[in-house]
Amino acid sequence: MPDYSSPARRPTIVDVARAAGVSTAVVSYTLNGRRGVSAATRERVLRAADELGWRPASAARSLRSGPAAAALVVVHDQPFGTRAAFPLDLVTGALQTIGPDTLTLAVHVAGSPADAARLMDRWWTERRYGAFVVTGVRVDDARLAALRSLPAPAVVVGTAPDGGPATWQHVVLDDGAAFAQVGAFLAELGHRRVAMVAGSERLVAPVRRAAALGSALAGHGIELRTVAGDGPERAAAALLPLLAAADRPTAVVTDDDATAGLVLDVARRLGLGVPWDLSVVAGTDSPACYLTAPSLTAVPYPVEELGRATGRALRTALGAGPVSGAGPSPGAGTSSGAAPSVGVEPPRTVPVGRLVVRGSTAPPPGD
Amino acid sequence: MPDYSSPARRPTIVDVARAAGVSTAVVSYTLNGRRGVSAATRERVLRAADELGWRPASAARSLRSGPAAAALVVVHDQPFGTRAAFPLDLVTGALQTIGPDTLTLAVHVAGSPADAARLMDRWWTERRYGAFVVTGVRVDDARLAALRSLPAPAVVVGTAPDGGPATWQHVVLDDGAAFAQVGAFLAELGHRRVAMVAGSERLVAPVRRAAALGSALAGHGIELRTVAGDGPERAAAALLPLLAAADRPTAVVTDDDATAGLVLDVARRLGLGVPWDLSVVAGTDSPACYLTAPSLTAVPYPVEELGRATGRALRTALGAGPVSGAGPSPGAGTSSGAAPSVGVEPPRTVPVGRLVVRGSTAPPPGD
Repeated sequence: MPDYSSPARRPTIVDVARAAGVSTAVVSYTLNGRRGVSAATRERVLRAADELGWRPASAARSLRSGPAAAALVVVHDQPFGTRAAFPLDLVTGALQTIGPDTLTLAVHVAGSPADAARLMDRWWTERRYGAFVVTGVRVDDARLAALRSLPAPAVVVGTAPDGGPATWQHVVLDDGAAFAQVGAFLAELGHRRVAMVAGSERLVAPVRRAAALGSALAGHGIELRTVAGDGPERAAAALLPLLAAADRPTAVVTDDDATAGLVLDVARRLGLGVPWDLSVVAGTDSPACYLTAPSLTAVPYPVEELGRATGRALRTALGAGPVSGAGPSPGAGTSSGAAPSVGVEPPRTVPVGRLVVRGSTAPPPGD
Repeated sequence: MPDYSSPARRPTIVDVARAAGVSTAVVSYTLNGRRGVSAATRERVLRAADELGWRPASAARSLRSGPAAAALVVVHDQPFGTRAAFPLDLVTGALQTIGPDTLTLAVHVAGSPADAARLMDRWWTERRYGAFVVTGVRVDDARLAALRSLPAPAVVVGTAPDGGPATWQHVVLDDGAAFAQVGAFLAELGHRRVAMVAGSERLVAPVRRAAALGSALAGHGIELRTVAGDGPERAAAALLPLLAAADRPTAVVTDDDATAGLVLDVARRLGLGVPWDLSVVAGTDSPACYLTAPSLTAVPYPVEELGRATGRALRTALGAGPVSGAGPSPGAGTSSGAAPSVGVEPPRTVPVGRLVVRGSTAPPPGD
């Protein structure tokens, strides 16, 4: 009869590290077959693991029998609390596709990409999760570097493949197209002096958005001015001189809704009427964009659809097979009609709908 | 030498269920020693588990050796996307106290309390988590009923003990005191017709807040009118007749920031100036409260402090011991000075600071 009340004490990598006289990081590196561990140390770790009877923990089996488990490791070091809404809405969308009986998706919060990478390394060693989801991708993101060397199945939300392993699935929001729409819209209204309050230059997405806006405006002979806007303090510091200058822009585009609210606030303080003196476009639509005065013209943000695409990508990453009748398939929405190359799936591109035009945009003031 | 590449296939409760010819729920009930399973079925399940060599999975060991694991199961069926920000900010606060090397806290999203209860039951059976955190407590919450019958260590955020097991830790935000402040503030400004757009009556916290506001106003001889406000559609439907009536309130209090934004919007459409015709108080401060026009007087919401208290409660629940020099201890902030009774810890009460007064409140219009 099994004893359900006191499960047998199983050795962990902490025990192996202690027995081998090394750190848990060295144990993790060794057990994952990664480079950087000397042959002697490797031998000592493997002998300790063998003598203790260490076995990878239970998560891997669930890939075959129970619900597969994947982890979304969020890096939470952004100053704006509202940013945190994104991962949970994404998970809700993913659950609509996969259902908790097929797959469970745990969200963990790390203070930095390096912390997240360390956790993913440990959990992969312990076979706690069968795949990882990465959102809010940074420039030189430590999480992607860790995943590349493990290597683990992964869903990367927000970036296209750039030489990552074939076991990675990519889900991309077509926000380049959306910001191109913003550029065309402002040019057609007659604006010639346009500025963008950029999002964090540490993140991949804001850089891509600013480039798309700049490129669309350049097509109309308009040069985009870009100012730093990473966090409310930097945005406010950049906005005051920008909007107080004689050659101030007649339209300002932001990377997110909270920064657009700051633009409204600074304009109000400087006595600039929105939209007649200044047009404002928010980078990401949200309930807050509707509640400001005036309400904000904004780029739609189909986060639940992004979540559903992430759920489908997760099924593929975990080998659970596609969902029948499901929305964007790999390659849908990409502009090239080329067949996917063997072994590497093209990203799942989630289209962004038409710009939501509200009260914050109008033709520029007459000269 | 251990074979790291292919962990042994271990039987799961799905296998046990198949062998015994019952559902996984029946297996879970049996293995957790819960009532409602016949003796014959129980015997069949236990024999199948024994023959298959089923053992609880590995998570419990981490309580002794590695980082302990707890799960926060969020129920995400609210219409406002901004609500989702709360759990991640809470987790960030908790991580400030516990650190991922001591404890990992996974956030799962369920579509209903019943779904969440089912997941917690399964994970407890599999020993995947050593404790659970429950936020956004509902009236008759299926998650608390499930935890009560397992029974698992739990941290319940937002409600005081009501006869739950002594293994539960309670973390309470003192928002009753905060809403009493709102009542006193409005009475002192001279308001006599006050309405509250209530939050969801399915949740415990909004009901408590409305009661605290009503009680504070009653102390000044003012009767509170309460209208339904669960979700933007119901709030909008209730607000139009409320604010269009001849005896309309001179001050409206809401349960959250998004609903306060709706009040500003409806007032604008009806030609009511805020604050000179109508004062508005938002139930939960957030960046959005600062960005509206006028900016919103709001109740502070110390979510990171709530997270730190949750982290300390989790350490206690998992037997990890208190953190030295940490903030509110059990019983801090409670009005009674009584010593805690043996076996049941008083809730950790997180104080709410002074009301944040901004541009949306003023004395009522002269009659």
